[in-house]
Amino acid sequence: MTTPLVDFSRLCIHTMTTKPWTLEETIDGYTRAGVPAITVWRQHLEPYGPDEAGRMLRDSGLRVVSLCRGGFFPATNAAAREEARNDNRRAIDEAAAIGAPLVVLVCGAIPGMDLADGRQQILDGIAAVLPHAQAAGVKLAIEPLHPMYADSRSAVNTLEQANNMVAALRSPWLGVTVDVYHLWWDPMLKSEIARAADSIFSFHVCDWRTPTRDILNDRGMMGEGCINIKRIRGWVEDAGFRGPIEVEIFSNEFWDWDQTRLVERIKQAYLSAV
Amino acid sequence: MTTPLVDFSRLCIHTMTTKPWTLEETIDGYTRAGVPAITVWRQHLEPYGPDEAGRMLRDSGLRVVSLCRGGFFPATNAAAREEARNDNRRAIDEAAAIGAPLVVLVCGAIPGMDLADGRQQILDGIAAVLPHAQAAGVKLAIEPLHPMYADSRSAVNTLEQANNMVAALRSPWLGVTVDVYHLWWDPMLKSEIARAADSIFSFHVCDWRTPTRDILNDRGMMGEGCINIKRIRGWVEDAGFRGPIEVEIFSNEFWDWDQTRLVERIKQAYLSAV
Repeated sequence: MTTPLVDFSRLCIHTMTTKPWTLEETIDGYTRAGVPAITVWRQHLEPYGPDEAGRMLRDSGLRVVSLCRGGFFPATNAAAREEARNDNRRAIDEAAAIGAPLVVLVCGAIPGMDLADGRQQILDGIAAVLPHAQAAGVKLAIEPLHPMYADSRSAVNTLEQANNMVAALRSPWLGVTVDVYHLWWDPMLKSEIARAADSIFSFHVCDWRTPTRDILNDRGMMGEGCINIKRIRGWVEDAGFRGPIEVEIFSNEFWDWDQTRLVERIKQAYLSAV
Repeated sequence: MTTPLVDFSRLCIHTMTTKPWTLEETIDGYTRAGVPAITVWRQHLEPYGPDEAGRMLRDSGLRVVSLCRGGFFPATNAAAREEARNDNRRAIDEAAAIGAPLVVLVCGAIPGMDLADGRQQILDGIAAVLPHAQAAGVKLAIEPLHPMYADSRSAVNTLEQANNMVAALRSPWLGVTVDVYHLWWDPMLKSEIARAADSIFSFHVCDWRTPTRDILNDRGMMGEGCINIKRIRGWVEDAGFRGPIEVEIFSNEFWDWDQTRLVERIKQAYLSAV
């Protein structure tokens, strides 16, 4: 049995979950609500710049869990691939500047590109930026995305593929992100989580709504969908993971809410359904 | 290299592709267009009943490739599971009545039911109806569905799972359906198609649109999406499959078209992109 969560010490929220808020409003909202940790998306960082954002975050006392997102390595020509790698190097520098120990990689896909080619370009791209990550003291996590995003967002669609890439590149600076939304359906999930072991660098939660009204922005609040989040958390913890539990919900519905009320709803769902 | 298709001898269209048409209009439309084969959905059969529909289909000269769809085995209580099995037995009888040698199984899922339980209920359900299929001379094909349907439509989401079920039940009356829409993303697809070999009972084509505007009814015309259909057809043929190529497109967009024009569009796309 998974041990129940009884306080908010491991709770982290992604700035994209409360997308309408600026970073300043987010920091204020999370600290007021007693949320101890934050994952910052680059679009929320951009208006401030990494130095100013880093100062705000340090002053807030919030723990910065990760920067989202790097990745998007495949491209149709070498110049574009090099630009993608440089953008990942910039993301690593931004992470270092805001005190984030991790950059999460949404690996990318080009519609119509052969998936095997895309996957090779991803592996090559990660290999190329890993030295920069190590030099900056920032880890990278491959986040496998649901197969419904294999066309344009990520050609890495199972934890097995991500684990294979980690095994191929053999670096303590490279691991995986387990996101229940992307992986819950996979019959190999339990064994691949066990295999990932201490290369599980982060853990994301939300839920799968039935019906799903939008392929991108209709993720559910934990407990309102069909994912057995507690069980997957148990597998992740059995594998050794004890880090933050990150609430990442892309939802047109919740973005329309008062975001302070949304954070309270998240805290409630976190205790009951995670 | 996959051998180009130069005529329509292997073309089959699903009645759901031209959903606005009645079965009578469908038979008329396909024969006028020189489409030699049809897969019949039960909702198009229902207004006529299997005997009358069987007479109409025999009179038309169309080859009946399969009946869609059986399945939906998981249920929350034993009585409902038995009713699901009885409904599959009725589908088998309907297939026999219309001269369809195959019933395609969309295996089912109950939102929130443990996936392992659902998968076991599917295996048990298929095992329970297989004797009826054999007695009727009708084969059954497990169609793995895309993981985005794992919540409510099918807990069988990879060809590997379907192949494992076929291996477990060891009957010449049980095989698999390869549908490019559901399976194109899978890094194991090529090897699992080879493994399926002569248990590949049918092959469905359409395409994956970017962006996908609706999770159910926005499938693309062959060639307008990102799936390398020719390559997957090559794998299926390398595995020994030489049967009909079935066009199954659920599309709010195409259902709004004049359906005669849609059939002509399908013929064009079939020669160029399949």
